[in-house]
Amino acid sequence: MAEDQALEKNNRINLLFDFYESLLTEKQQNFTRYYFQDNYTLGEISSLFNITRQAVYEHVKRAELVLEDYESKLHLLEKHQQRGQMIQEIDEQIAANQGSMSAKTKLQLKALLEQIDTLG
Amino acid sequence: MAEDQALEKNNRINLLFDFYESLLTEKQQNFTRYYFQDNYTLGEISSLFNITRQAVYEHVKRAELVLEDYESKLHLLEKHQQRGQMIQEIDEQIAANQGSMSAKTKLQLKALLEQIDTLG
Repeated sequence: MAEDQALEKNNRINLLFDFYESLLTEKQQNFTRYYFQDNYTLGEISSLFNITRQAVYEHVKRAELVLEDYESKLHLLEKHQQRGQMIQEIDEQIAANQGSMSAKTKLQLKALLEQIDTLG
Repeated sequence: MAEDQALEKNNRINLLFDFYESLLTEKQQNFTRYYFQDNYTLGEISSLFNITRQAVYEHVKRAELVLEDYESKLHLLEKHQQRGQMIQEIDEQIAANQGSMSAKTKLQLKALLEQIDTLG
C-alpha cells in the first residue's frame, strides 16, 4: 500500500515536471530527474554530486513543493487531463459514426485530435 | 502606426495576463489591470495609489517582463492559439460532412470542441 502511494506520487511528480520543468532552477531540475525519473536513491545522488544526503533531500522536497505550487496556480496537468477526456469523447463519437464519414475524413480528424492532445 | 503597435502590445499583454495572472504579485496584478485592461494613465494610477508616476511605471514594466518571461518558458498563449486553429479545422471538417452526420452528433461535437477551447 505504501509502495503504491509512493509510485502514484512519483508518477504525479513526473507529470508535473513535464509541464513545469522550465520554471525550476537547474539544480531542482537535476535532482528531480535523478530522484523521480531515474529512481536514484538520495544516497546515490549525494555521492554523485558530492553533497550531503540531507541537502539532496531538501532540494528534492523543495522541487516537489514548487511543482505543486505551480499546479495549484496554473492547473496545467488538470486541464490536460480534462482535455484528454474530451478528446476521447470526440474520438468515440467519430468512431460511432461508422460508415457515414469517409475514412479519409476520420483519419484527418483523428490526426488533428492527436495534435491537440500532444500540445500539452 | 505607433498607435496600432501600442494597441497590439496592449492586446498581447492582456492575453498573457489571462494565462499568467496567478503567477504575478498582487501589486503587479493591480497595476497590470489598471494600466493594460482599464487603460488608466500612469498619472491616474499614481494618484490612486499615492505613489510616484515613476514607481507605477516600474511596476508596469516589470509585470510586462515577467509575463513575457513566463510565456517564453511555458508558451501557454502560443499553444492556445495553435489549439484554436486545430479546433477550427475540426469544426470545418465537421461542417463539410453535411448530411452524413446527425444534427445531434454535430451539436455534441461542437460543444466538446468549445469546451476544449475555453479550457485555456
